[in-house]
Amino acid sequence: MTIADRWLLPDGMDEVLPPQASRMEELRRSLLDLYHRWGYDQVMPPPVEFLDSLLTGTGTDLDLQTFKLTDQLTGRLMGVSADVTPQVARMDAHSMRHQGPARLCYCTNVLRAKPDQLQGGRSPVQVGVELFGHAGLEADLEILRLALTSLTAAGAEELHLALGHIGIYRSLVQAAELGRDDELALFEALELKSPVELAARVEASVADPALAEMFRALGTLHGGPEVLDEAREAFAGAPAAVGEALAQLRALHQGVAAEHPEVDLYFDLAELRGYQYHTGMMFAAFVPGYGQALAKGGRYDDTGRAFGRARPATGFSMDLKLLATLVQSEPPRDGIWAPAEGEGVAEAIAALRERGERVVQALPGQTTGPEAHRCSRRLMQSDGLWQTVTL
Amino acid sequence: MTIADRWLLPDGMDEVLPPQASRMEELRRSLLDLYHRWGYDQVMPPPVEFLDSLLTGTGTDLDLQTFKLTDQLTGRLMGVSADVTPQVARMDAHSMRHQGPARLCYCTNVLRAKPDQLQGGRSPVQVGVELFGHAGLEADLEILRLALTSLTAAGAEELHLALGHIGIYRSLVQAAELGRDDELALFEALELKSPVELAARVEASVADPALAEMFRALGTLHGGPEVLDEAREAFAGAPAAVGEALAQLRALHQGVAAEHPEVDLYFDLAELRGYQYHTGMMFAAFVPGYGQALAKGGRYDDTGRAFGRARPATGFSMDLKLLATLVQSEPPRDGIWAPAEGEGVAEAIAALRERGERVVQALPGQTTGPEAHRCSRRLMQSDGLWQTVTL
Repeated sequence: MTIADRWLLPDGMDEVLPPQASRMEELRRSLLDLYHRWGYDQVMPPPVEFLDSLLTGTGTDLDLQTFKLTDQLTGRLMGVSADVTPQVARMDAHSMRHQGPARLCYCTNVLRAKPDQLQGGRSPVQVGVELFGHAGLEADLEILRLALTSLTAAGAEELHLALGHIGIYRSLVQAAELGRDDELALFEALELKSPVELAARVEASVADPALAEMFRALGTLHGGPEVLDEAREAFAGAPAAVGEALAQLRALHQGVAAEHPEVDLYFDLAELRGYQYHTGMMFAAFVPGYGQALAKGGRYDDTGRAFGRARPATGFSMDLKLLATLVQSEPPRDGIWAPAEGEGVAEAIAALRERGERVVQALPGQTTGPEAHRCSRRLMQSDGLWQTVTL
Repeated sequence: MTIADRWLLPDGMDEVLPPQASRMEELRRSLLDLYHRWGYDQVMPPPVEFLDSLLTGTGTDLDLQTFKLTDQLTGRLMGVSADVTPQVARMDAHSMRHQGPARLCYCTNVLRAKPDQLQGGRSPVQVGVELFGHAGLEADLEILRLALTSLTAAGAEELHLALGHIGIYRSLVQAAELGRDDELALFEALELKSPVELAARVEASVADPALAEMFRALGTLHGGPEVLDEAREAFAGAPAAVGEALAQLRALHQGVAAEHPEVDLYFDLAELRGYQYHTGMMFAAFVPGYGQALAKGGRYDDTGRAFGRARPATGFSMDLKLLATLVQSEPPRDGIWAPAEGEGVAEAIAALRERGERVVQALPGQTTGPEAHRCSRRLMQSDGLWQTVTL
């Protein structure tokens, strides 16, 4: 094996060097501090769980993304966490058992067997919040506002927010009494965003002409707020739940527009990403120049049911690695270069560090100087006193 | 499967709930800030690497601790990082290629297939520093001082520092021209700390009577600084490298004693933990009440050789999870409880959060009150103004 081979890293499993690692650390802190100020308490989910717990109620998408490990202590199959959200829902349901609403946040490494998308990472640092125990729109709105505030805090300047609601598709599927296979085929056609494919699938599986028309309409309902009016017309004869979903989207739109008029808001009623565990509104926030959403979230009630407690839940998450690329800043050259030895130098260095200064002490025989270590000052002895001198 | 079964977590793979997760976050920040002030730059090693890279030059101990995964993209075997230190050495050797000394620090999750010890964790958060490119004692001393400073910063009050040097055992093994099997057998006898077992092994494999006596002596050389004097006598006829190792330990002792007189320093010349990749001085720091070392480190030169660049290296690491149990503090009850609605309440809340306040907004219909959310004040409207009132 050559040296180059040895160094090859698996696709999407990357190292982070200075100064990018410090940028990530800084952003981590400012986000967790933000969540603290909004009343969210930090948790750390287990990085590995037994597979049957990890994937209970989460669907096959997550199964395919989850690395499997054999536990040498028990022989049982375990999975490495690929998405923290269902884990946090279970912690809320089982370990914490708070009465009333609970607000939790986290920032932790996850691993994915397959990248989310072409050339995507497989080792994101997932940061996000979850709000449990409240089924109302106020909770969804808080999550939306906090997602937008997070992206702004990370340095995003132009934000595009896509809103959808899984309840519309779910209600139509239920009304059409589709079998599992037909439902999946329709789902895939909608995901492809191909009207021709969608029309063929609808033709093949939806008998009721009114419902067939609604499924076809669903594929076209994306765009600005006017989409909600078009949807009201298109789904006039749909089950009541569809009307409720549309009313929710309208209320969320008003709430976001009032507080974040700078955000470009649009609707995509056929967006079914996260279909497997979402139960209500869903959203994704985009920034120009990024081929993927920087924040994704939505409502996913009752994930904790299998763990003893069905609770309303809504939240969002982001990839800190991706987020930290929004702003490129150079680390400050503000260090103090200290000599390797000298009487009292250790005490002088300790005092400077105590005051918060970054002090790099030379090592005997060192040939690199202050510039190589981002130092703009030098610690020198003059008249028996240690003093810092600007270089 | 019952609910209890579903919730069972694999041994040593634990979740961290509030307020412990916040304590860990706080400690993480204070340690990384400390390392920054000492001139160490943060890095994030890849959480997963191809197995042949990950385990190059690290020995079989780490192999047994490493979870193996098949990369679905390439079919190659990968390993989940179980110890960050060799990874950081490779980043220094390959990705960074700094001239002169380089100081790096990190704080990241690792996974272990087997716990380090009975009932130990398998998902530590490894935090530590590495100093590359300097072979002198000054670098080792900086690492020792920084380890002690880290533990004090984490709240440790009574510190015990065990110092050893792998060079002594290595030199004796070389002089005795031991085969691989004999060396391993002797190694195991020393690890067991059983004089009877050791004597039997020495009898069986070391022909030279003077060397046999030295191996037997090695098993007894642990205790206070007087051990160094005893060792000088016992190893008078040993290879020169043994004398050099003893001289290094003496110098480190003086350096640590001068700056940290409060630390209880002792020597264990037969302590071979980390034997597989260490090359010089080794240390472990203990705190009463903990059955395992809270910080472990030492010199491990040339780990990067297989990656194109042999460099002197010394460093230490700790488990943030364990470290964060040193101090038990309750989170402050300093939040502000805000009503669900009211004219201008959103602006009032935003202004308070802007000032750094933690504001928990009630959700409509919420039955739990300010106490349940660690709030000591309430946001109320009086005379048309929003004001905080102490509860």
